[in-house]
Amino acid sequence: MAAKRPLNVGLVGCGFMGRTHSNAWGKVNQFFELEFQPVLKAVCARNPEEVQAFAEQWGYESTETDWRVLVAREDIDLIDIASPNDTHAEIATAAAAAGKMVTTEKPLARGGAESEQMVKAVDAAGVPNMVWYNYRRVPAVTLAKQLVDEGRLGKIFHYRAKFLQDWTISKDLPQGGTALWRLDVNVAGSGVTGDLLAHCIDTALWLNGDIDRVSAMTETFVKERHHNLTGKTEPVGIDDASAFLARFENGSLGTFEATRYARGHKALYTLEINGEHASIMWDLHDLHRLSYFDHGDEGRVRGWRSIHITDSDHPYMAHWWVPGLQIGYEHSFIHQAADFLTGLATGELVSPTFREALATDYVTDAVLKSATSEKWEMVKRA
Amino acid sequence: MAAKRPLNVGLVGCGFMGRTHSNAWGKVNQFFELEFQPVLKAVCARNPEEVQAFAEQWGYESTETDWRVLVAREDIDLIDIASPNDTHAEIATAAAAAGKMVTTEKPLARGGAESEQMVKAVDAAGVPNMVWYNYRRVPAVTLAKQLVDEGRLGKIFHYRAKFLQDWTISKDLPQGGTALWRLDVNVAGSGVTGDLLAHCIDTALWLNGDIDRVSAMTETFVKERHHNLTGKTEPVGIDDASAFLARFENGSLGTFEATRYARGHKALYTLEINGEHASIMWDLHDLHRLSYFDHGDEGRVRGWRSIHITDSDHPYMAHWWVPGLQIGYEHSFIHQAADFLTGLATGELVSPTFREALATDYVTDAVLKSATSEKWEMVKRA
Amino acid sequence: MAAKRPLNVGLVGCGFMGRTHSNAWGKVNQFFELEFQPVLKAVCARNPEEVQAFAEQWGYESTETDWRVLVAREDIDLIDIASPNDTHAEIATAAAAAGKMVTTEKPLARGGAESEQMVKAVDAAGVPNMVWYNYRRVPAVTLAKQLVDEGRLGKIFHYRAKFLQDWTISKDLPQGGTALWRLDVNVAGSGVTGDLLAHCIDTALWLNGDIDRVSAMTETFVKERHHNLTGKTEPVGIDDASAFLARFENGSLGTFEATRYARGHKALYTLEINGEHASIMWDLHDLHRLSYFDHGDEGRVRGWRSIHITDSDHPYMAHWWVPGLQIGYEHSFIHQAADFLTGLATGELVSPTFREALATDYVTDAVLKSATSEKWEMVKRA
Amino acid sequence: MAAKRPLNVGLVGCGFMGRTHSNAWGKVNQFFELEFQPVLKAVCARNPEEVQAFAEQWGYESTETDWRVLVAREDIDLIDIASPNDTHAEIATAAAAAGKMVTTEKPLARGGAESEQMVKAVDAAGVPNMVWYNYRRVPAVTLAKQLVDEGRLGKIFHYRAKFLQDWTISKDLPQGGTALWRLDVNVAGSGVTGDLLAHCIDTALWLNGDIDRVSAMTETFVKERHHNLTGKTEPVGIDDASAFLARFENGSLGTFEATRYARGHKALYTLEINGEHASIMWDLHDLHRLSYFDHGDEGRVRGWRSIHITDSDHPYMAHWWVPGLQIGYEHSFIHQAADFLTGLATGELVSPTFREALATDYVTDAVLKSATSEKWEMVKRA
Repeated sequence: MAAKRPLNVGLVGCGFMGRTHSNAWGKVNQFFELEFQPVLKAVCARNPEEVQAFAEQWGYESTETDWRVLVAREDIDLIDIASPNDTHAEIATAAAAAGKMVTTEKPLARGGAESEQMVKAVDAAGVPNMVWYNYRRVPAVTLAKQLVDEGRLGKIFHYRAKFLQDWTISKDLPQGGTALWRLDVNVAGSGVTGDLLAHCIDTALWLNGDIDRVSAMTETFVKERHHNLTGKTEPVGIDDASAFLARFENGSLGTFEATRYARGHKALYTLEINGEHASIMWDLHDLHRLSYFDHGDEGRVRGWRSIHITDSDHPYMAHWWVPGLQIGYEHSFIHQAADFLTGLATGELVSPTFREALATDYVTDAVLKSATSEKWEMVKRA
Repeated sequence: MAAKRPLNVGLVGCGFMGRTHSNAWGKVNQFFELEFQPVLKAVCARNPEEVQAFAEQWGYESTETDWRVLVAREDIDLIDIASPNDTHAEIATAAAAAGKMVTTEKPLARGGAESEQMVKAVDAAGVPNMVWYNYRRVPAVTLAKQLVDEGRLGKIFHYRAKFLQDWTISKDLPQGGTALWRLDVNVAGSGVTGDLLAHCIDTALWLNGDIDRVSAMTETFVKERHHNLTGKTEPVGIDDASAFLARFENGSLGTFEATRYARGHKALYTLEINGEHASIMWDLHDLHRLSYFDHGDEGRVRGWRSIHITDSDHPYMAHWWVPGLQIGYEHSFIHQAADFLTGLATGELVSPTFREALATDYVTDAVLKSATSEKWEMVKRA
Repeated sequence: MAAKRPLNVGLVGCGFMGRTHSNAWGKVNQFFELEFQPVLKAVCARNPEEVQAFAEQWGYESTETDWRVLVAREDIDLIDIASPNDTHAEIATAAAAAGKMVTTEKPLARGGAESEQMVKAVDAAGVPNMVWYNYRRVPAVTLAKQLVDEGRLGKIFHYRAKFLQDWTISKDLPQGGTALWRLDVNVAGSGVTGDLLAHCIDTALWLNGDIDRVSAMTETFVKERHHNLTGKTEPVGIDDASAFLARFENGSLGTFEATRYARGHKALYTLEINGEHASIMWDLHDLHRLSYFDHGDEGRVRGWRSIHITDSDHPYMAHWWVPGLQIGYEHSFIHQAADFLTGLATGELVSPTFREALATDYVTDAVLKSATSEKWEMVKRA
Repeated sequence: MAAKRPLNVGLVGCGFMGRTHSNAWGKVNQFFELEFQPVLKAVCARNPEEVQAFAEQWGYESTETDWRVLVAREDIDLIDIASPNDTHAEIATAAAAAGKMVTTEKPLARGGAESEQMVKAVDAAGVPNMVWYNYRRVPAVTLAKQLVDEGRLGKIFHYRAKFLQDWTISKDLPQGGTALWRLDVNVAGSGVTGDLLAHCIDTALWLNGDIDRVSAMTETFVKERHHNLTGKTEPVGIDDASAFLARFENGSLGTFEATRYARGHKALYTLEINGEHASIMWDLHDLHRLSYFDHGDEGRVRGWRSIHITDSDHPYMAHWWVPGLQIGYEHSFIHQAADFLTGLATGELVSPTFREALATDYVTDAVLKSATSEKWEMVKRA
């Protein structure tokens, strides 16, 4: 076995996404044969005790409490941003300027305007870059992509996606601060549109191509919440729910919806594509299955197939256990890390790049604009 | 057992809906204890041989080939209209004027303008009237209504409904004529909006109250088809697919979609309601089940309940077989017939009346208008 | 349309099965084009008021309170037995001797000894005969039979069947009398073995051929119950639960189980067949679906197909509504009636005949014997 | 954070189970707060290159090619056996004699006789010991255990378990050697009985208590296969399929089945328990769900609950991601490692110990004996 080439990772953020990224960098070489070996060089977060504990738990060699110091370190190859949305642009831009590779948790930033600066920065620096829209690498979703690309669905008529949660229904839930920054519009940029719909849109653009225009509505069911930073009851600036109609460039119709007020659903991301010859359905609550309907099957025995995505001919699955044994959520990040490391070895950019993620931001921008204008809005192209 | 009071039925139309109605009138007294007993007095259709065969098969005592003659017959109490949409208004208006009770297959007519005349006619005549929006009487849907009315869901946040089919994908399918009048805009009034979305809207208004306004898009995927009446290739005037965003009066958000281009789905009418305390899902492909999520359940064992609607405490089910044994599609019509006959005995109008069905037409009108105007449109109140 | 040939039916019994049979005879000609038309000539039951009410509800022309009188009537062509198991042999034997066609609800009788006499009687009289093992005519089950017969499954390795109910768990439920004769061993012959397992066995023999031998266990969980006829607490003679291992003649292994103590299941009859090339699953709680796995499908998109059995190329379904609209439990009886009437026209015996049903009794005999002997027991061949 | 106490692990075997164990030891401290920290000290396998590659991939500090050397090393605290069944007894006995803690992959050994020696050895040495029956630590199964222990099911009537696979149907599959030792009876001890049924039995004893006696059948569908070690076609000594009836000490009835000839199933381990008040179902193909039916629910809305086991009040799940995001197969090993390490800190033995696993071997012994004797066989108690 040839010696691995080390890739020194500097992580920013040690929350939920800091954990998923760390797990991915740490596990990827145990399951994939790769030229590169990530080295958990440093993790950065503002709270010294918290970052120290995180480093010990995940095996980081060192810690920082100022991301500017991290970015300036010569022993870091890659800055991986897992901090809140409002920090992405500044850190990524600085990291690119410092010649670092940059990966960032989704969304790219708080909207197209910020995101454009990030794209410019990585383009100018010529550094590898990627956004962690992890659901593309759920094997069932990757298989869906293969089936679409092979033309099995034929002309596409319909694309449907929803992302349903129920964790903010209580009026007593505060907004803001470390744990609840997703409810603070200044930090998050928007509510479910940038958080949940962004996932739906990223996958949709990947599977079904560009969206021309949208008509949207948003709603904030709870208008005021206690704010953890000000200590006062403050207006809620985010959208609690967001839905839109879309027309894709390929002529198909799209319907999209996300909410945190769908009682009974925790993270129910579902998608469906209806084509002339075949259809596909998938949902995140049973992420290891893909539903597939092939109109070419003999009529009498035609039906939706529930494909248990655990076999060695399914994307990524030869690297895991044996047929029948399912993987879970975290593995999508490991797959994305594996692809990124493969891209480093071959010199190819790995999708979604910053530029591709910008396209998603342009759709969420149009959605939010349409919700206000109450008109159909064109989507800017990245 | 007291002697039954006969109700002499005169049916117009002997197609698909003529069969479902005949089956309902013929079977209802074997399963429900009712004061009234429908008598299949006469069936009317233009083709003498066809109507004769139909009468023999279903046990009608006589036939007519001109509905005006049927309406004029003194031995007919009720005119039941199961002919294409373009005939509803004229027949119903004449029947009401003749003092007959009138029931009609949905939609009430080809839009609000026609339907308003029908409402006026039955109001003026003071005759019992009802529209066959049969899905309200699927026991699972009726149970959903009970749960909503009991306040179990609490404040409603979301209402979702879809009606997906795939039978018109082929470009070789012609339009028009006896079998395919649903593709002929002059006869049908519209495509999936009046055919499929109307069902979704009727149930939604029943379960969730009025809709204030909508933003819609429609599409005609196949622009030209051979026309069975002209023998030529003609432009297709109907909408093949229709989707809309809605704002309900109660503050909840609605998303609706119908299409005949969803490969793999034959009659997949699905609905979901998300409330503060509980949620409900139902679909027509497994119509004997209701999914129910009760947030009040203890957390560790909380989950979506799949209620097999076959027990004697479920709506209508005490009249059928034993627990575990499911009923099907046709039974929804039998239930509606039973309710109608019960209403006759008690003197109460049975929902949905013409006026209530007019409310659905006003929503479909707004949907079609919005699809053209590309703006949000207000819904007229019935 | 040619005039129908009348078939005068005399029904014995007006309980649950009297209703399903009456519904079948009454509806069959509205959905199937048949040479014969059943005429509901007479219904017989001991209670005069009850039988009169039943006759009015279902449209029987006359009533009897003594089955011997019914059997002696010259205007009756067919005696249809829907009374408890202990009456089958005597009535069927007399009916055959009187030259009547005979159909009987399952099981044929209370075991092989009684059943053999019935087979002899119909053979001697040369009269058409049939047993109402209705589940063969659920379209999904009929499709399973077609797939097996076409050799699609290849060599069969496994056959599994269960019939799970939960309605006798309460110790307070009495035994015996009109409504609860199934708990009275003298009337029923056995418990779940003759009631529920008999269904499983009938289908198994039909789909997978003869069973050579069995090893069984039975259990009576509630040992004593109030008896409705004696008014006293009496030992319970029936088996509450019954399970057995089987070896089929074709080399496959069988596992069978039935119980009335499976909390949460009302009538969950499930079956599964695993063959070299394909497998099949079906369950009565979603009777309108068949699950089918075809190993010949391309690996990447191979999965269990959920076939929604509502299309016109599915068995019997062209006679019902339109694709996507499901039928229910009662339709299996209508299909069996249709097949019986078709058999009358063509002169062919329709399966399962008395002789075929005797084969099922021989299996249940062996099961009950094995449960007592605690040994493997050979199955007698019919 | 206090310094962790190191636990030096010496692993034997670097196949499928070597991977799952290594992953568990390596990952457990990133998700659980534990006093002990496993150190991957050494891995042992006969092939020097293979073991070296494995050590690099998983981060073992050293390698051995002779397990006796590994057992003799003073820097090893725990011998973890992941090599084929025929090696378990000798290694475990030696390890215990050397004062090492011992954990072994299931089954404990090739039957009760071997296993008894192992129990004696660990008892004599007084060393912590555990068998990797990992499925107990799938959170849904652990929740099932909680519900049973809380008495929610009431008196148990039925226990059902199956483990269905389809990977040995081809006659061309050889037996024996590194990859296929499970088909070599000398190495494996038995076929599906010791491999798959052992899992079913372990869970059953844990959830439902002791089994008194069994009646079994086994079958070897493919009688001869090429043997990788001899290079010749040899008789197949293992059972391809195995099924048995069981009577539990608590009066409930059990049905069990395992096979590698169930086309369409890869690792479909299913279990169901029916109690007086509630029932439970689970299957390995959707391991993150538990089905639960509570008869105490109000009748009208009673149904099987599909509990998505991803919430923080579900066993082990607070250690993973956020609600809605599922884990997979490998996590069951991580949970077992966490419990073992917790047990080390508290001084408690962690279930299943060698003695508890011996009880499973006694059941499989009785199953294999009954299949030969064709009689009910008593189960020896551990």
